[in-house]
Amino acid sequence: MTDPTAARLDRDDPLAKYRDLFVGSESPLVYFDGNSLGRPLRVTGERLSRFVAEEWGARLIRGWDERWFDLPLAVGDELGRITLGAGPGQTTIGDSTTVLLYKAIRAALAARPDRTEIVLDRDNFPTDRYLAQGIAEERGVRLRWIDVDPAAGVTAEQLAGAVGPDTALVLLSHVAYRSAWLADLPELTRIAHDAGALVLWDLSHSVGSVPVLLDSWDVDLAVGCTYKYLNGGPGAPAFVYVAARHLEELTQPVQGWMGAADPFLMGPDYAPAEGIRRFLSGTPPIVGMLAVQDMLALIDEVGMPAVRDKSAGLTAYAVELADDLLSPAGVVVASPRDADRRGGHVTLNHPLMREATAALWQRDVIPDYRDPHGLRLGLSPLSTSYDEVRRGVEIVREVLDGLSG
Amino acid sequence: MTDPTAARLDRDDPLAKYRDLFVGSESPLVYFDGNSLGRPLRVTGERLSRFVAEEWGARLIRGWDERWFDLPLAVGDELGRITLGAGPGQTTIGDSTTVLLYKAIRAALAARPDRTEIVLDRDNFPTDRYLAQGIAEERGVRLRWIDVDPAAGVTAEQLAGAVGPDTALVLLSHVAYRSAWLADLPELTRIAHDAGALVLWDLSHSVGSVPVLLDSWDVDLAVGCTYKYLNGGPGAPAFVYVAARHLEELTQPVQGWMGAADPFLMGPDYAPAEGIRRFLSGTPPIVGMLAVQDMLALIDEVGMPAVRDKSAGLTAYAVELADDLLSPAGVVVASPRDADRRGGHVTLNHPLMREATAALWQRDVIPDYRDPHGLRLGLSPLSTSYDEVRRGVEIVREVLDGLSG
Repeated sequence: MTDPTAARLDRDDPLAKYRDLFVGSESPLVYFDGNSLGRPLRVTGERLSRFVAEEWGARLIRGWDERWFDLPLAVGDELGRITLGAGPGQTTIGDSTTVLLYKAIRAALAARPDRTEIVLDRDNFPTDRYLAQGIAEERGVRLRWIDVDPAAGVTAEQLAGAVGPDTALVLLSHVAYRSAWLADLPELTRIAHDAGALVLWDLSHSVGSVPVLLDSWDVDLAVGCTYKYLNGGPGAPAFVYVAARHLEELTQPVQGWMGAADPFLMGPDYAPAEGIRRFLSGTPPIVGMLAVQDMLALIDEVGMPAVRDKSAGLTAYAVELADDLLSPAGVVVASPRDADRRGGHVTLNHPLMREATAALWQRDVIPDYRDPHGLRLGLSPLSTSYDEVRRGVEIVREVLDGLSG
Repeated sequence: MTDPTAARLDRDDPLAKYRDLFVGSESPLVYFDGNSLGRPLRVTGERLSRFVAEEWGARLIRGWDERWFDLPLAVGDELGRITLGAGPGQTTIGDSTTVLLYKAIRAALAARPDRTEIVLDRDNFPTDRYLAQGIAEERGVRLRWIDVDPAAGVTAEQLAGAVGPDTALVLLSHVAYRSAWLADLPELTRIAHDAGALVLWDLSHSVGSVPVLLDSWDVDLAVGCTYKYLNGGPGAPAFVYVAARHLEELTQPVQGWMGAADPFLMGPDYAPAEGIRRFLSGTPPIVGMLAVQDMLALIDEVGMPAVRDKSAGLTAYAVELADDLLSPAGVVVASPRDADRRGGHVTLNHPLMREATAALWQRDVIPDYRDPHGLRLGLSPLSTSYDEVRRGVEIVREVLDGLSG
C-alpha cells in the first residue's frame, strides 16, 4: 500500500514522469544502488543494437573518420557543458576512472617537479589512495594524509594545515563514497591554489547528481565515473577534465597513438596532441559511450538544478524516514543532516548492517554495504520515486527487527 | 560477374558458410579492413540489447556478484584456450591495448631492476614505440632499436646481436602491422631468454587469424587487441597474458581497486590480487566484452587451424591476383611471399596508393592505407570470400588505371 506522504511527494515531483524512461521502473524491486550502477534508459538497448547494425556493421572502419575519432571529445564536451560547468575542449571520455586518475596524478606531479608531496585524505575512495601510494613510491614523493571525521569530510582548516610549499597536488573526492559528505570544492580549491598546488577532484560520486562548475571554481583537473549517475552501464568509460590554461603544460605518461599529435602519421617519435586529446592513449571504447550519451541528453532536458532539487528531496525524505522508522531500531544516520553538505546518497549505520544487506537483497531491496556497518541508500534522482524510498526503508526496519529479534 | 576461379575457391572453402553470420555479408561492399575493425556478428546486436534488458537492467548491481566480477578473467581464459594456447589463469581482458602494454612494460622492467635496456624495432606499431619512449625517459632505461627490412621483420641474427646482459625486455609484434611479416616467435623468444631478458609480444595483428601457442613457446608477457580479428567492436577492450611462472613476481603500477587482493575490503593499503587479476586497475568494461565472446564462440567451433588455413588461402589468392592484375600497373607486393611468414593481410605498394585508397572508398572497396604508399588488404578469414578478394583487386586495378591515365 502506498504511504500518503510518499504519494503526495511523488504527485508533487515535477521529475516523476522521467522514472518510466528507465528499464525496470515497473518492477516492485527497490533499487538503492544507482550510485554504484545506474539503471539503463529504455532507449539504450535499441540504441546499442542499432549501432551494431547501422554504424559498426554498415560504416565499418569508415566510422572512425565519420564520427568515432572525435566522439571521446564530443561526448566530453557535452558532459562538460551539461554536468560540469566546463567549456568545450577540456573534457574527454577515455579509460577507466582508475587509469585516468593515474594519468592525471602523474601529469600534475610532472608540472610541479620541484614539489614533493601529495595531500589526500584517508577516507578517499580506495582506487585514489592505492594509486597515490604506488605513484608516491615510484616517483619519490610523500603522501600527506588528512584524517577525517567521515561525517564531516576534509575541512578548510585541515587542508590549510596540510598544504604548503612542498605540496604538488591535492587529491580529493567531491562527494565521499561512504558518508556522502559534499566537500566545499571552491573553498578547498582556493586553499590548494594559495599554496601553489594543483587540485585533482574525483567527481565519481557527484557528477550527474550534484551540479559542478569546474570552470568557475578554477579547478585544475578532475576525473569521474559514468556508470553511476550517468547510467553508462557496467564498466562504462570515465572522463577527465583538464583546465584549458594547463593543457599545454600537462602531459601524461601513457603515450599511445590516439593521444599523439597525428595518430595516422605513425611517425618515429611521440608528440602529444594539442588540447585534451593528449589525455587519450589507446583506442577509446566507442560502444561504452553510447549509453552515456542517452543519459546526458536526458539530463540536458531536465537541467542539473532540477536534478539536484530532486536528489535533495529524496535524501531528505530518506533521513526523515530513518529518524522515524529506523532510529528506534538503533540505526544512526551517518550522512550529513545539512542538505547543502550532502550528495546523492544516505548512509545508515547499525552493527548488523552487513547481515541486513544480504537479507534485503533476498527481499528485492538493493542497497550497497560499506564497511564499517554502513547501509548505503543511493537515490538516483531521475529513476527513484519517493514511494520506492518509503517501501525500502520500511523493509530495512522489518529486516533489522528480524535480525535483532 | 563472378570469376570462375574465385567461384571455385569459394565452393571448395569449408568455412564459406560462416560468412553469412556477419552483418553486411549480403552487401556488395568489399571489406578489406577486418584487420582494423572486424565486422560484427549478426547475433551481437541482439546480444547487446538483451544484455541491457536482462542483465544490466534486471540484475543491476547484483550482476557484479553473479557474473561480471569474474568476466574479465573468464573471457580471458576462453580467449587463451581458443586463440592463444594459454592455460587458464594467465589471461584477462582489461583496458586498451596501449594501457595494457604500458602496464606490461612497466611490470617487466620492475622484474629486471638491474638491467637497463629495452630492445625493440623501428617498424613496431606506433603505440608500442611511443610507450617505450616515454617509459625509457621516465625510468632511465635505454632503447636499443633494431632497424628492419619491413618485408623481413626482425631476424634471429639481428635480435641475437641486440640483446645482452643489459636487456631487461624485448618488445616485438607477432605480425607486423604494415607488411604482415609473421615473426618467428618461438625462436626470437628463445634468443631473448638466452640473454636473460623477458619478452613481451604484441599479438594485435595475429590473434584470431594466426594460431599462437604462448605456453608452449614459453612467452613471458603478451598483449593484444580484440577489435580486429576478434570482432569486438570499435574500442573493445584488449587482453594481457602473463605466464603463470611470473604471476607472483610481476606487479604493475596502475594500482586500482579492481586489481587489489580484496576489492570490497577497501582497506588502507594496496595489496595486489593473486594471479592475473592484479593486472586489472579500474572497473573493467563489461559491455565491451560481449561481442568478443560471440566471436570466440565461433572461432572455437571452427578451430584456429582451419581459420589459419582459410587466412593463408585468402592471402595467397590476393598475392596471385596482385601478380596477375596489378604488377603490370606497377604495384609491388610488400608482404612476404612465403605463406608461413605472412599474417592475415597483404600490403601492396604503389606511389599512388594514398590517392587510390580515397578513390576505392568512393567505390565501396574499403582497404586501409599505411605510409609509405601501402594499400593494406586485411582479409578477415571468417567474413571474407574469395569472390570479395577478386572483386576488390579488380577495382584496385581500375582505380590505378584511372589515376595514372
